[in-house]
Amino acid sequence: MKRLNLVILFLLIVAAGNAQKIMGFTDTNAANQIYWEKKFDAQLSAKNMETWMQFLTSHPHHVGSPQDKMNAEYMANLFMQWGYQTEIASYFVLFPTPKTRSLELLGSKPFKAKLEEPTLNADKTSGQKTEQLPTYNAYSADGDVTAELVFVNRGIPSDYEELERMGIDVKGKIVIAKYGGSWRGIKPKVAYEHGAIGCIIYSDPEDDGYVQGDVYPNGAFRPKDGVQRGSVLDMPVYPGDPLTPGVAATKDAKRLNRSEAVTLMKIPVLPISYEDALPLLQSLGGQVVPASWRGGLPITYHVGPGKDKVHLKLQFNWDIKQLYNVIAKLPGSELPDEWIIRGNHHDAWVNGAADPISGIVSELEEARVIGEMVKKGFKLKRTLVYCAWDGEEPGLLGSTEWTEDHQVELRKKAVLYLNTDANSRGFINISGSHSLEPFFNEIANDVIDPQTGVSIKERKYALTMVTSDKPERVKLTGNKNIKLGALGAGSDWSGFLQLLGIASINLGFGGEGQGGEYHSIYDSYDHFVKFTDPGFQYEVTLAKTTGRAMMRMANADVLPFEVNSFYKTVAGYVTELKALLDNTRTETAQENKMIRDKLFDFATDPTKKFQSPKEKDAVPYLDFSNLENKMEQLKNITEEFQNQYNNAIQLPADKRNELNEILFKVERSLINEKGLPGRPWYKHQIYAPGYYTGYGVKTLPGIREAIEQRKWKDAQENIEIVSKTMENYTQQVQHGMNIIDSK
Amino acid sequence: MKRLNLVILFLLIVAAGNAQKIMGFTDTNAANQIYWEKKFDAQLSAKNMETWMQFLTSHPHHVGSPQDKMNAEYMANLFMQWGYQTEIASYFVLFPTPKTRSLELLGSKPFKAKLEEPTLNADKTSGQKTEQLPTYNAYSADGDVTAELVFVNRGIPSDYEELERMGIDVKGKIVIAKYGGSWRGIKPKVAYEHGAIGCIIYSDPEDDGYVQGDVYPNGAFRPKDGVQRGSVLDMPVYPGDPLTPGVAATKDAKRLNRSEAVTLMKIPVLPISYEDALPLLQSLGGQVVPASWRGGLPITYHVGPGKDKVHLKLQFNWDIKQLYNVIAKLPGSELPDEWIIRGNHHDAWVNGAADPISGIVSELEEARVIGEMVKKGFKLKRTLVYCAWDGEEPGLLGSTEWTEDHQVELRKKAVLYLNTDANSRGFINISGSHSLEPFFNEIANDVIDPQTGVSIKERKYALTMVTSDKPERVKLTGNKNIKLGALGAGSDWSGFLQLLGIASINLGFGGEGQGGEYHSIYDSYDHFVKFTDPGFQYEVTLAKTTGRAMMRMANADVLPFEVNSFYKTVAGYVTELKALLDNTRTETAQENKMIRDKLFDFATDPTKKFQSPKEKDAVPYLDFSNLENKMEQLKNITEEFQNQYNNAIQLPADKRNELNEILFKVERSLINEKGLPGRPWYKHQIYAPGYYTGYGVKTLPGIREAIEQRKWKDAQENIEIVSKTMENYTQQVQHGMNIIDSK
Repeated sequence: MKRLNLVILFLLIVAAGNAQKIMGFTDTNAANQIYWEKKFDAQLSAKNMETWMQFLTSHPHHVGSPQDKMNAEYMANLFMQWGYQTEIASYFVLFPTPKTRSLELLGSKPFKAKLEEPTLNADKTSGQKTEQLPTYNAYSADGDVTAELVFVNRGIPSDYEELERMGIDVKGKIVIAKYGGSWRGIKPKVAYEHGAIGCIIYSDPEDDGYVQGDVYPNGAFRPKDGVQRGSVLDMPVYPGDPLTPGVAATKDAKRLNRSEAVTLMKIPVLPISYEDALPLLQSLGGQVVPASWRGGLPITYHVGPGKDKVHLKLQFNWDIKQLYNVIAKLPGSELPDEWIIRGNHHDAWVNGAADPISGIVSELEEARVIGEMVKKGFKLKRTLVYCAWDGEEPGLLGSTEWTEDHQVELRKKAVLYLNTDANSRGFINISGSHSLEPFFNEIANDVIDPQTGVSIKERKYALTMVTSDKPERVKLTGNKNIKLGALGAGSDWSGFLQLLGIASINLGFGGEGQGGEYHSIYDSYDHFVKFTDPGFQYEVTLAKTTGRAMMRMANADVLPFEVNSFYKTVAGYVTELKALLDNTRTETAQENKMIRDKLFDFATDPTKKFQSPKEKDAVPYLDFSNLENKMEQLKNITEEFQNQYNNAIQLPADKRNELNEILFKVERSLINEKGLPGRPWYKHQIYAPGYYTGYGVKTLPGIREAIEQRKWKDAQENIEIVSKTMENYTQQVQHGMNIIDSK
Repeated sequence: MKRLNLVILFLLIVAAGNAQKIMGFTDTNAANQIYWEKKFDAQLSAKNMETWMQFLTSHPHHVGSPQDKMNAEYMANLFMQWGYQTEIASYFVLFPTPKTRSLELLGSKPFKAKLEEPTLNADKTSGQKTEQLPTYNAYSADGDVTAELVFVNRGIPSDYEELERMGIDVKGKIVIAKYGGSWRGIKPKVAYEHGAIGCIIYSDPEDDGYVQGDVYPNGAFRPKDGVQRGSVLDMPVYPGDPLTPGVAATKDAKRLNRSEAVTLMKIPVLPISYEDALPLLQSLGGQVVPASWRGGLPITYHVGPGKDKVHLKLQFNWDIKQLYNVIAKLPGSELPDEWIIRGNHHDAWVNGAADPISGIVSELEEARVIGEMVKKGFKLKRTLVYCAWDGEEPGLLGSTEWTEDHQVELRKKAVLYLNTDANSRGFINISGSHSLEPFFNEIANDVIDPQTGVSIKERKYALTMVTSDKPERVKLTGNKNIKLGALGAGSDWSGFLQLLGIASINLGFGGEGQGGEYHSIYDSYDHFVKFTDPGFQYEVTLAKTTGRAMMRMANADVLPFEVNSFYKTVAGYVTELKALLDNTRTETAQENKMIRDKLFDFATDPTKKFQSPKEKDAVPYLDFSNLENKMEQLKNITEEFQNQYNNAIQLPADKRNELNEILFKVERSLINEKGLPGRPWYKHQIYAPGYYTGYGVKTLPGIREAIEQRKWKDAQENIEIVSKTMENYTQQVQHGMNIIDSK
């Protein structure tokens, strides 16, 4: 040990010469941190990841399957070996599985859908038929419906407006929608709102099949009989177990009846392959679809209905299943009650090599090396918490129940939640709390891309430049900052960020390992090592990225939150919303005039059925002044704070700790306990999944969705709520400022 | 007669109360004109048009066919009956027809292309097999080539840049290109420039088949075995008979040898159906194509080559054929040496109901009614010349040879050339000399759309508004002016406009009668009356539009040329070109820096073959000052002239006649006898077909193409040439001004 310390000391002296800085670290601590980061990088093993992937994907491991439980226990054992305090946190959740699935076209050319993904010789696990979940949408309603079929494009609200103009009503009909354009659960929800009694969703080859590339097993893309399984739980209302909103689904929890659970879909809904979709779409009559609705099947797409009806019958086992989260802690030596949390789910729809095992094996290897380094003298000030979530696929069940269960403790202790999920070859993508933008940019600058030898930040910049059009490039030149995306829904951050106000980040690599395996039996080890990331290079690079974030966040002298970066981002959103309102006003007036002038009628081919759009209410001016004043105060205090940030590093330890607590809790001030309009579970005022987009984020959602839905009174009310939220954030930063000033 | 004159007088008095004005007419003359226009409208008969269409499309009537000659004689007879001085102007042109056509895929899965459009019961003329021209591209080279196949998207220059980046060379290969994106003749020309030895062109269903709509005979669109015939003569160099450039192809004309004729294609080229294309495209290996290159076939499109070669064999009969233009004159009573010329071709690839018979029957009916009205007392000051061109399809042969033959007389007498071609249901489209923009807008305001009851101008405005995106609409609101397009190539105006500098217009209706019959055996009477314009309403409306133009132009007191409208349009082009040069400079610098910074390499998937683009020469600043000064003078004189235009109507007749001659000859000053760089036949300095686009126009082509092709010295030289051209135009307008001032 003594000899090791001498070596470290020597290296620290050498490093001090180069003096690489890390945000929030004194120079000495930065040099020590970098020393350990290099050791960390050197020990990461692609081989380990591959071995674990082989085991974890060896059988289907959805919620309730034997392999699901076995995987949790396998990972818990690993964490324990590496020195982590490990537990399995179990919950009991509603998880329906199919009992009956039948879809047929009636009439003169009857057709019965296959609803089956065939075994492929080239894919070893594809034949595990008795263990696989069949192709279905979890939380579809039971139903037995026969009706005319209508093609509704993506099945989002604007598609129904277009249908209305074409004179098509879906009341009492079954709709068929293409995957894409929204989260899948939006499609049956909107169909139901328009009176449809059933919903079919299919993967069109234009989006997800031969149009994109050669199909599996020759290429990576979705074959004709591949099906995207997936949940249709109404997660934009609340995620997690549908029977226990807001509270943990413990064995004895008080549960809603199924009929009371508003997130359960109201109509039967079934996903199918493009081979199964073809005869259904071919049977449709009516108008030819608008150009933007076309897909990649070799037919003329029609809106329908056809002369033949469709019969859809679905029945489910509505069982409560046990799920298994793995929670592994490595307690901090100085600040054990400040938690840096890392998560990736482990459950899959079938074998799930890419989704989620590519992410979890990277997390495991990251945790292993850090655990080993701690055994060899690496010190972590704060506590690391590694989580492997179960039940993400059906509806973020494991993470949501755990955050609901531990909300008091998490509100107190959680500094950061860092999420990953399926990972692939290519380019870094980062989304999340914008106060962390500079911190993650610094990391992206320090991690080297394995294919090009430049930093992942440089490579991302190259992609942005090359894929931008020429006028855009001029504007972007030299701006290498990775602008974080905002988080909607899609993986396990929701409980942390949107329920509890814990600063959260989701990141991963992608863009070069595309394929069509998503949520099918072909998301397998064989597919992954042939097409997605053969050498696991990007799972290693992911570990370098997330590992750095975990270790730096654990050891920072002053936590690397950049409140002015948050201000700037929100100021951009406010500008956007004002423009949205103004544009909506101008366009409404414009369109109303066009309607009155009959321009829509004059422009229409009279041989086609057409309803001129209806005039809309005029858009009022709203009062943004309170919000603008609060933004001005936020601007001033955050600029001042960032100017003083480096001084904060010199504060005495107790003051620094006080400041750090303010810093990681500043995101809590973005929570409004009443939640968003109509969905109290979602409490974050800056980021939420869109009520009609699902995965797609809505920023400043209370205001933005009110404007989009033309609820002007709600919009004004939410402007005031966000103003108050900004005031709270400003006060927190002011408290931080006071601490710095007090030195 | 006397009684009629009294009626007219009465009506004139009534009309004077309403006082509808016509550009260039005294109020009295305008009232008289409007009286006759109403009579004209009332006499137009859809029934006549349908009868003529049935006869003219009853058999294939391409150049050299018996029906082609018979149609010319039939029409000449009609013109004579209606009182026209009629002749058939015959020329002798090179028109190759196929002797051997064979296309096969060799190798393990051999395939022989069908190259045949089948007879359909629903289409009565589709079975006239012995009379039909087979599917081919006229002026393809003879050839017998066997080589690897490469897919080149549209086959335009930018596609080859993309291929180069993918590391693909077409040297010694056969290329297959989709129709569209350029005039078809560009594809084999550019393929040849890149070293290809053969070229296949096919109609992709994405552009022209089931993706667009239901296929024939159920719907209007191209069936799987439909083929687009067409010429590949290098018309951007010169149109007309390839053996007699610049002079008339009379029987004894001096002719080039075929080897000297630069417009003949150098490699064999063949058009095929999408059914025939499918096995060829399926055989291709290599990279998956860029997303924008995909088509609508149910395959993954690859660039190629594949492991199997393609064998293409083509031989032609290189015969001289006789063609038959019909030229019918109705001499003017006051100014017989001022000619208002109207034309539409009569030859087709096969039966050609839409292309060109829909246009020619409208022209015939227009000529009939005017002829009848003249018999009943309608006076025409100037001479009307009605032309029915032969040989348009192979390369504007009939019109080009006639304009070359009569160039001296035409330069002296031609006031306007008004062209039409295939016509359909829908919206008016007008292109041509911009000094005629106000005149044709006035007409568009006076012609009523048969489907909506509003003017065709109002309906066009409605379409523009409805199809524009929302921010664009705000800008367009209330601006109902129909901005004329500029004329490139595509129909029979080239000899008039681009060789002789005769102000020319092309117009027609379309947008609602779309189909896939173009240049196939299915462009038939049956197709037309089922899908294109069942009641011939828009052929009647076309006659109302063109008839008004002919009669107003014939009788105007002062010819309705608006030179300031010309100035404004050209000023817009100059602004465009300066921006083009500046953007090219910025983008070149930008891209060169990106290349030096290796951004293209960093952004590329290293598992894919990729060549980083090469640095380009820096873009110099060019001296536009001379042109700008000339434009300023043009602005001043044209504004002054337009301010005085209404005074000109009050000039004494001799002065007016003098002024009118200046007005219709002002377009001649846009001719530079040396022609454009590398193509002396094209003499107009404002409008030309693009050397690498074909149909697509290039405005200020000498400057624009030099910039696009990075020939900076040529660009500067052409700026000076255009400056001189503007000076000439200014002088002509000044002469006109002097006449007005002299009163």
